Amino acid sequence: MYEKHLECRSCGKKIELGMKYTCPVCEGILELKYDYEAMKEDPLLLDDKEHKGMWKYSHVLPVRDKGNIVTLGEGATPLLRCCRLEKEYNMSVSLYLKAESLNPSGSFKDRPSSVGISAAKEYGAKRVVIASSGNASAAAAAYCAGTGMECIVFVPEGTDASKVTQAAAYGAAVIPVAGNYSNSYKMALECSAKYGWPNITSTFLNPYTVEADKTAAYEIWEQLGECMPDYVVIPIASGPLLVGMYKGFQELVHLGIASPESRLPAMIGVQSEQCMPVTKAYLEHTAKVCGWEFPIHTIAGGISDPLIGYEQDGELTLKTALESGGRMSCLSEEEIADAMQQVETKAGLYCEPTSAVAVGAAARLYKEGVIEPGTKVVCMLTGHGFKYSGRKPFVQKVISSIEELPILI
Amino acid sequence: MYEKHLECRSCGKKIELGMKYTCPVCEGILELKYDYEAMKEDPLLLDDKEHKGMWKYSHVLPVRDKGNIVTLGEGATPLLRCCRLEKEYNMSVSLYLKAESLNPSGSFKDRPSSVGISAAKEYGAKRVVIASSGNASAAAAAYCAGTGMECIVFVPEGTDASKVTQAAAYGAAVIPVAGNYSNSYKMALECSAKYGWPNITSTFLNPYTVEADKTAAYEIWEQLGECMPDYVVIPIASGPLLVGMYKGFQELVHLGIASPESRLPAMIGVQSEQCMPVTKAYLEHTAKVCGWEFPIHTIAGGISDPLIGYEQDGELTLKTALESGGRMSCLSEEEIADAMQQVETKAGLYCEPTSAVAVGAAARLYKEGVIEPGTKVVCMLTGHGFKYSGRKPFVQKVISSIEELPILI
Repeated sequence: MYEKHLECRSCGKKIELGMKYTCPVCEGILELKYDYEAMKEDPLLLDDKEHKGMWKYSHVLPVRDKGNIVTLGEGATPLLRCCRLEKEYNMSVSLYLKAESLNPSGSFKDRPSSVGISAAKEYGAKRVVIASSGNASAAAAAYCAGTGMECIVFVPEGTDASKVTQAAAYGAAVIPVAGNYSNSYKMALECSAKYGWPNITSTFLNPYTVEADKTAAYEIWEQLGECMPDYVVIPIASGPLLVGMYKGFQELVHLGIASPESRLPAMIGVQSEQCMPVTKAYLEHTAKVCGWEFPIHTIAGGISDPLIGYEQDGELTLKTALESGGRMSCLSEEEIADAMQQVETKAGLYCEPTSAVAVGAAARLYKEGVIEPGTKVVCMLTGHGFKYSGRKPFVQKVISSIEELPILI
Repeated sequence: MYEKHLECRSCGKKIELGMKYTCPVCEGILELKYDYEAMKEDPLLLDDKEHKGMWKYSHVLPVRDKGNIVTLGEGATPLLRCCRLEKEYNMSVSLYLKAESLNPSGSFKDRPSSVGISAAKEYGAKRVVIASSGNASAAAAAYCAGTGMECIVFVPEGTDASKVTQAAAYGAAVIPVAGNYSNSYKMALECSAKYGWPNITSTFLNPYTVEADKTAAYEIWEQLGECMPDYVVIPIASGPLLVGMYKGFQELVHLGIASPESRLPAMIGVQSEQCMPVTKAYLEHTAKVCGWEFPIHTIAGGISDPLIGYEQDGELTLKTALESGGRMSCLSEEEIADAMQQVETKAGLYCEPTSAVAVGAAARLYKEGVIEPGTKVVCMLTGHGFKYSGRKPFVQKVISSIEELPILI
């Protein structure tokens, strides 16, 4: 509503609003800029009475005509304090889980898709394109179905059918592309350039989508009783959720909603040891992120992103984490599997392995003294347990009478 | 909070509160009764400020000590107007979908499980038992995990492993019982009687769980701008959702929250033609429901309940539907599959076939003149699309360049 222009995050070049993806001067990442002075005066700033969920924040989101809002009820996800996990991990903190898994299509990608498709609609698009074989393609397909837009999803050839069943069910055209993800990514760029179809690939490519992630920060602040968390722990592929949320926390202060003395949370990004391009740069004390060229074998499919071809996304995420006083971390496959089990059996939230890395990392960083006692720690549960198809089948002996119950009574 | 006693729905016998399941006199279904006069005076009646989601209605739910509330953030599910479906079906109505599929474990069973487990906790239980191989067992297991209670799930031998993967992941003891569902049902009864473990089998057995379904009615009334819908269409197995919701609408008037002139909605129950014990009784103009003895082949697994052994549950549901001015209906397998596709591709909501029957039936009843133009119709989407494992695998030709795109540009 108050968006002014796009601005290159690298060279500062200002560009007119529109479906644009990189800086024409330096190919840097574009960011949406707002007229914060006008925004500040808005009496319904964080509470557009016409909308529930994420769109109650419509006045800080980049859609001008509210008639273009495409919503499926995303946002307003539960923030759950989990004392049983605190006890399990011996953590003297308030540990909260933000259940982004309960968004309509089952992941945190619904917020950016809702904003991305709304913006695409505002710019007159009838069709969008995305390269993704995971949560982002399902989310994009859902919102396209909701508004009657065509959704073209490029996936690498050989992608397991179960990963795109959901997107196909919503009616998306799921198209396998020869080669690896880089080829799918490039084909989406090419289509967007040639035909003008908005590209909503969920990296930092589309400057509209990342704005949606701010709303998770607003919600957490409200859910904590208008209070900042001390740490926010987030599973990271390229990292728009971390960067977008941090912008949200900053805006709360900048807009005078939160006190100017508020201490912003330290943003902690987590990757799998099997695919950790951003964490590697962090550990090597360099700002330069390199594409991950090693073989990847991880159950955390949602963050299995080598960043090849868009390494600058990882650099922006690393920079933001450090700026916030946070850091990058990583977990082994065993730690990820264990964290998933803890979240499911102690918090009662079904989650995909990727979601659980935030909780596993929080526990480890507490043990290592990085996360301090007495603090408020929010872990982002990014995707639902249904998204994970690698569970072992359940086997139990059949019984015929209660005397055979295999349980100590 | 204001619950007084249990009362037999058949003979009117009053019974002290407690984990009780059937009338000791006539084996009728028990109902929780409240002190509505005291309740009316409660200034926070529909808005317990301490809780979000379903538990903002804690003052009309049967938990005395709020410390016993076990919540995972259930309730406050989106109510979405779907103009694309109205158009598709040529319906001159306001068609709303209530996305109960977005509850934490992925189905409408989270509300009753949250109340059932909270009540079990209030009565000191460390372990509960349930007979179910579907949404109810997953929900029960989730809430047990959330509070550290043991959950014993009885399923018929030969139950497909995929149906209980979720419950097992939350840590429930999933135990196959020789024979069909009736045997599992009886074993839960037996365990509950012998060991005193609360039985939260999601029929009308547990008088606490059904109270939770009232909250879906309160929410809809609020989401419609403090207004009653004209029709509520609900997939039906034994039917506690229909009966519970109708009680909620009645309470809104009885408590003086809604105007005394409010016309309560007609409650419409829908079954699959493959398993329609309640609809059969409706069509034969009899109040007597018989267990369904025919073979069942339906994709709507969530309502594939022959009611054998608890036929009176179906009778209560039928009676309630008729009392409300509603009815029972049914759909063929083709109609169910088509409705699922319509919901997914036109509303952007991933749903299991059972969920879609409400939408399919609404369309058909409109065509038949039962649902009148100009009305507000709410269809209950009871379970998430992830719950359905019968989708056809996706197949598409691999392409190498955008010239090969199989799309008309």
